[in-house]
Amino acid sequence: MPAGRLDREAEVARRAAEAAGAVLRRHFRTSLAAETKGDLSPVTEADRAAEAAMRRILAEAFPEDGILGEEYGAEGEGRARLWVIDPLDGTRAFITGRPLFAVLIALLEEGSPVLGLIAQPVLGELWLGVRGQGLSFTSPLGGRAGTRRCPTLARAELAATTPAMFDPEERARFERLAARVGRVSWGGDAYAYGLLALGLIDIIAEADLKPWDWTALVPVVEEAGGIVRDWEGHPLTFGAKGRIIALGDPARLEEVIDLLA
Amino acid sequence: MPAGRLDREAEVARRAAEAAGAVLRRHFRTSLAAETKGDLSPVTEADRAAEAAMRRILAEAFPEDGILGEEYGAEGEGRARLWVIDPLDGTRAFITGRPLFAVLIALLEEGSPVLGLIAQPVLGELWLGVRGQGLSFTSPLGGRAGTRRCPTLARAELAATTPAMFDPEERARFERLAARVGRVSWGGDAYAYGLLALGLIDIIAEADLKPWDWTALVPVVEEAGGIVRDWEGHPLTFGAKGRIIALGDPARLEEVIDLLA
Repeated sequence: MPAGRLDREAEVARRAAEAAGAVLRRHFRTSLAAETKGDLSPVTEADRAAEAAMRRILAEAFPEDGILGEEYGAEGEGRARLWVIDPLDGTRAFITGRPLFAVLIALLEEGSPVLGLIAQPVLGELWLGVRGQGLSFTSPLGGRAGTRRCPTLARAELAATTPAMFDPEERARFERLAARVGRVSWGGDAYAYGLLALGLIDIIAEADLKPWDWTALVPVVEEAGGIVRDWEGHPLTFGAKGRIIALGDPARLEEVIDLLA
Repeated sequence: MPAGRLDREAEVARRAAEAAGAVLRRHFRTSLAAETKGDLSPVTEADRAAEAAMRRILAEAFPEDGILGEEYGAEGEGRARLWVIDPLDGTRAFITGRPLFAVLIALLEEGSPVLGLIAQPVLGELWLGVRGQGLSFTSPLGGRAGTRRCPTLARAELAATTPAMFDPEERARFERLAARVGRVSWGGDAYAYGLLALGLIDIIAEADLKPWDWTALVPVVEEAGGIVRDWEGHPLTFGAKGRIIALGDPARLEEVIDLLA
């Protein structure tokens, strides 16, 4: 990749992800005590320590920027640039010992995600998308950056994390889409968006995502040739319902939106 | 582990799993053409090549034994000893690039599984349970053999591969159990039974499993301290409905069966 405008940001984001990953690796497959928050999502000591480590690195490198994270909330949210971080996406995967959880980092400029990072710290995989500069992917497991064409929904791979993320009406809409595709696989979290960016999954349709769940995914998917929208076909915005469609092949967008309507 | 009665069988099973794994690694995250069988399960060239490799090794080492596999059916099924193999459990995981598929090998004596092997060939993880000799587990990702106690269902981790494996009646029964546990995670396949044997998942309840899906799991789970039964609480048998309960803590069996009744 040639030298680009956000090279320093990318380098700092990698360092922050590595710091969070080191914390998570120490706790992976150990008997950590999972607490339960009001919203019933499991939270761990690892989660909070990892976010604190990321915040320190980002705040030191870019003191002018705001930071929004799942565990410690927002600092300087009104600023021109905002880092949105999730130290542990896929807490269920982490707690049950599946190496498919992720560290997520996004940089927003005037509300629009220009840099997105997905790291899997146990396997040593890293997706880094920078707007206008493409997606870089490194992994000891193989795979190449780039979504695939999907000429027909009938052979499409659809993924979603869990049926529990949908309310009954959303579930019915999702099932209409599921009935038309080739296969559905469950248990994805952010990692599934990384697989879509490698041309291994065609469609992801999810609901109830928070900004720290989805912001990093947009540059990863779109710099790999895909598209990320809400269920009405609009770009995602903060404060929206958190319903997301990611497509490897943007040509299928209208069809998928019609089925989810 | 001290020298045991089935040491040679275990050694040959490891070699067979390694041969299958080498085939699968070559195809992982490449654009292999997924066919579609009558039952709509995806089948790949890799799948068949991996089973053929395993059959050659097992048949050469134990010409007196029968072999039953998903792709090439049964040979010598009536013999006292039967190898039951699945070269690629979790085909959806494999096709979508998730390193959570598995090679499964079981040895049955007079219909009862005495040896079970789960291998994850991309990550280099191996579970090997031999009746009366315990479970051995090796992995570069960490984790230790041994299920955990589960004093109350309210904090239990429940897993299942996909809601699509249940018919409507089974789904209602599963939901009764799901409503009582701490959390549900999806997308497991055989790998989830491996995680249960490491004390990371408490309960797995599934349906529609074939003999090559479940036979290898029994010695893995039971030699780690857990228990495997059908939904009525009986040991699984060939020709049954393929409804399975695996519990890390056998003390919860009655309660789980009541909820699934």
